Amino acid sequence: MSEAKSAAFSIQICRIMRPDDANIVGNVHGGTILKMIEEAGVIISTRHCNTQPGDRCVAALARVERTDFLHPMFIGEVAHVSAEITYTSKHSVEVQVNVMSENILTGAKKVTNKATLWYVPFSLQNMDKVTEVPPIEYASPEQEEEGKKRYEAQKMERLETKERNGEMIMPVLSPDRQTKEPYTVGFSQSSLIHLVGPSDCTLHSFVHGGVTMKLMDEVAGIVAARHCKTNIVTASVDAINFHRKIKIGCVVTVSGRLTFASNKSMEIEVFVDANPLVQPGEGKYRAVTAFFTYISLDKEGKSLPVPPLKLETEEEQKRFEEGKARYLQNKAKRLAEKERQQ
Amino acid sequence: MSEAKSAAFSIQICRIMRPDDANIVGNVHGGTILKMIEEAGVIISTRHCNTQPGDRCVAALARVERTDFLHPMFIGEVAHVSAEITYTSKHSVEVQVNVMSENILTGAKKVTNKATLWYVPFSLQNMDKVTEVPPIEYASPEQEEEGKKRYEAQKMERLETKERNGEMIMPVLSPDRQTKEPYTVGFSQSSLIHLVGPSDCTLHSFVHGGVTMKLMDEVAGIVAARHCKTNIVTASVDAINFHRKIKIGCVVTVSGRLTFASNKSMEIEVFVDANPLVQPGEGKYRAVTAFFTYISLDKEGKSLPVPPLKLETEEEQKRFEEGKARYLQNKAKRLAEKERQQ
Amino acid sequence: MSEAKSAAFSIQICRIMRPDDANIVGNVHGGTILKMIEEAGVIISTRHCNTQPGDRCVAALARVERTDFLHPMFIGEVAHVSAEITYTSKHSVEVQVNVMSENILTGAKKVTNKATLWYVPFSLQNMDKVTEVPPIEYASPEQEEEGKKRYEAQKMERLETKERNGEMIMPVLSPDRQTKEPYTVGFSQSSLIHLVGPSDCTLHSFVHGGVTMKLMDEVAGIVAARHCKTNIVTASVDAINFHRKIKIGCVVTVSGRLTFASNKSMEIEVFVDANPLVQPGEGKYRAVTAFFTYISLDKEGKSLPVPPLKLETEEEQKRFEEGKARYLQNKAKRLAEKERQQ
Repeated sequence: MSEAKSAAFSIQICRIMRPDDANIVGNVHGGTILKMIEEAGVIISTRHCNTQPGDRCVAALARVERTDFLHPMFIGEVAHVSAEITYTSKHSVEVQVNVMSENILTGAKKVTNKATLWYVPFSLQNMDKVTEVPPIEYASPEQEEEGKKRYEAQKMERLETKERNGEMIMPVLSPDRQTKEPYTVGFSQSSLIHLVGPSDCTLHSFVHGGVTMKLMDEVAGIVAARHCKTNIVTASVDAINFHRKIKIGCVVTVSGRLTFASNKSMEIEVFVDANPLVQPGEGKYRAVTAFFTYISLDKEGKSLPVPPLKLETEEEQKRFEEGKARYLQNKAKRLAEKERQQ
Repeated sequence: MSEAKSAAFSIQICRIMRPDDANIVGNVHGGTILKMIEEAGVIISTRHCNTQPGDRCVAALARVERTDFLHPMFIGEVAHVSAEITYTSKHSVEVQVNVMSENILTGAKKVTNKATLWYVPFSLQNMDKVTEVPPIEYASPEQEEEGKKRYEAQKMERLETKERNGEMIMPVLSPDRQTKEPYTVGFSQSSLIHLVGPSDCTLHSFVHGGVTMKLMDEVAGIVAARHCKTNIVTASVDAINFHRKIKIGCVVTVSGRLTFASNKSMEIEVFVDANPLVQPGEGKYRAVTAFFTYISLDKEGKSLPVPPLKLETEEEQKRFEEGKARYLQNKAKRLAEKERQQ
Repeated sequence: MSEAKSAAFSIQICRIMRPDDANIVGNVHGGTILKMIEEAGVIISTRHCNTQPGDRCVAALARVERTDFLHPMFIGEVAHVSAEITYTSKHSVEVQVNVMSENILTGAKKVTNKATLWYVPFSLQNMDKVTEVPPIEYASPEQEEEGKKRYEAQKMERLETKERNGEMIMPVLSPDRQTKEPYTVGFSQSSLIHLVGPSDCTLHSFVHGGVTMKLMDEVAGIVAARHCKTNIVTASVDAINFHRKIKIGCVVTVSGRLTFASNKSMEIEVFVDANPLVQPGEGKYRAVTAFFTYISLDKEGKSLPVPPLKLETEEEQKRFEEGKARYLQNKAKRLAEKERQQ
């Protein structure tokens, strides 16, 4: 691939981390990083999808693959986010993103995240019409083949998630810490409500996926802090599927509840519900769901044990078992990867 | 009222307090809280006014009743704002809001504010046309009767304030600390000037009432800090009437001056003047006025004595007497309420 | 120079332009661009100054050379800011910055700005102590020689400006459009007043130079809009010298007044005065001054004639002549440059 061509497929975003990007002890929120990742993703994929004649289009985030937060980032550090397109199907774009933190005083650099995002282009004339994605060139047939496998795998998973969401009807009620016992699910359960404004949106008045993820991480952080009462940080995010777009003027309710806790980590399920404020005909709808994993840290940044979760209902018990299965599966995957790397 | 119905009339907003929400010692600005209160109010009243067929509309803040700040809130705490509709007249909505701070590390919770807001719905087709408000159901005829009394009382007061504003012509000049003696009105007199941008506005390009109140509290805080040279916090806000809407692209001048100081508190009069930047027909106009009361705190958060105010003109003397009357009246009200509660 | 080394001397920032970055017709504010330029500059110079052992330090903006805005940028476009270090003296760093706009829908790219910034490193232990700058390697002795010339030239100019500022004592009074005639200096004269918060500051609680420049451009834009009552955009900024740092908690007054108008452009003089809120010893001080040039555009983006400036005092006449001299000098420079390039 010539240099001119490869430049079109990559982008670099960087920014100094400010006080509002972080919690009280200076740890940059996972949500701030997810928002930067998505900004890089939407630029590179929208740019790519407009490299051919025909309808102008804008790329909308469809899915983020499971993401681990490898190292904490701090206020005053510079976050470097670099993104490149690694696969294209007829209607979707895969973007790989790397995040690095740089302490400009000491020169220390750390890879803090790697993420994979899937985008789908929508026509500007008709935001319900998906446009075609121009193909990229691959360095080798193997590379293309691997991309295709990733594409098929995520497609399958998205279909499965759709089903699961259909079943969920129970809304997360507002927390009731007066009557709820500490360490129960109800005790730490939390919600945020946000009115979508112009700065949250793309030019076409749909909420940036990154803005939604930032809100999701914020509510997950509140749940985790309520459960542990310590400094908590995002350890990972399970794959997130964006089922429906959210428009400007909606009231967005983001709710989180603990589903599982091991000795070292907590899993928090997060729901995003959108409610158009002035169009009453359109009712509230579930736009996104995800699982966030948090860990608890002491003042020196060392891992603290997480208090056990008190289960009260059969539903909670069931969700706990499912969370445990995900936890064990991810643990097994990490171990397998470590072995492969050695 | 069935539970499903009551849900439509209530809303809960919560958010972690960040560095930008607070002053240097970590006390959350009263203005930040007023802004959150108003966001809850505008969501719930706009939603309610759109529950019937006909013109789509957006609720605009018309009045905030006197509000006391009962306890300080700090960075890192979670602010919970819950709002419900408590009365509707043909053209206005009364919203009651409660604010609670939660320290998610210690679990400590405190009620920090209670506020009452009045909204008026305007048609989206024609922002000068007030639309009709669908009636709410009351738990009892007495409840409705009490609401009606509150409605009549605030209506009367709003009319009176209009009169009072008509008389005011003198603009607050820029402070002149070179020639002014400390502790005079002229010494601490301050202004903020802000160009209204998209983020300050509703979808219909009018400034959110909460944004205006935040600027008002900010200037009152500057006046109080200049007078005391200590850590100062908002203790209460007198009833605020929003006479005229402010549009995007206006330059807003918010000015404050001390009117009264007791041993323990200061009263600051705040004016909001709007000036459309390029519309030639419209000149500068007074949009809002209010009285803020501030107290001075030491590093441990204990109340400090406020330096006496040096009066220089007859005008200042007159305003001082009026401020003193308001101060004594509020004190009497608080005492009466305390006795009633015992 | 090896590739690894050159990477340390360059940086790329990019970001999608949002509604808050632009005026009502969608033109990105010159101030938004200046702020991004400065963020790139402070990252690259702070990073470079910490590449040697000894005191950790942070770079503070000392001067921005004259900057032309070559093309407008619009909401939804991606701004690419790339910076590299081009010269170092014992105590200062020269950074060259290029800004490019990219329309990701059409693929159109334009160079919108080129800027040169000078930074001085201050010790973190003692913010009054200037630290030493590690030298960079030059491609050729000629390159170093040219850098040295630029360094000497700006040093001389900074000394001269200090003198000029010393003379100015008259503060810009608040505008008085009731009694002032249109097209006079007094009619369009404007101010913004802002309380410095955490997000405006570096980790060491000093205001980012870019934040100050954004406020300066904002007030200059208000002056220009009041004079022309049309869509106005920043055409250029004269060299800006940052004489004194501004700390968190200061009230910053940014004032602008017209000094000169040709048929096609206006020159606006901008002053930044800082006033520490609670430090009793320190009074108000002049932190920065600059000249901004604006042009007036119609709805298609074509240049409109600027109404002539009505001069009322001898002072205004004197400033007009000085402005005219700067205008003619810059025009001559631009012509000379054009001829050189042909």
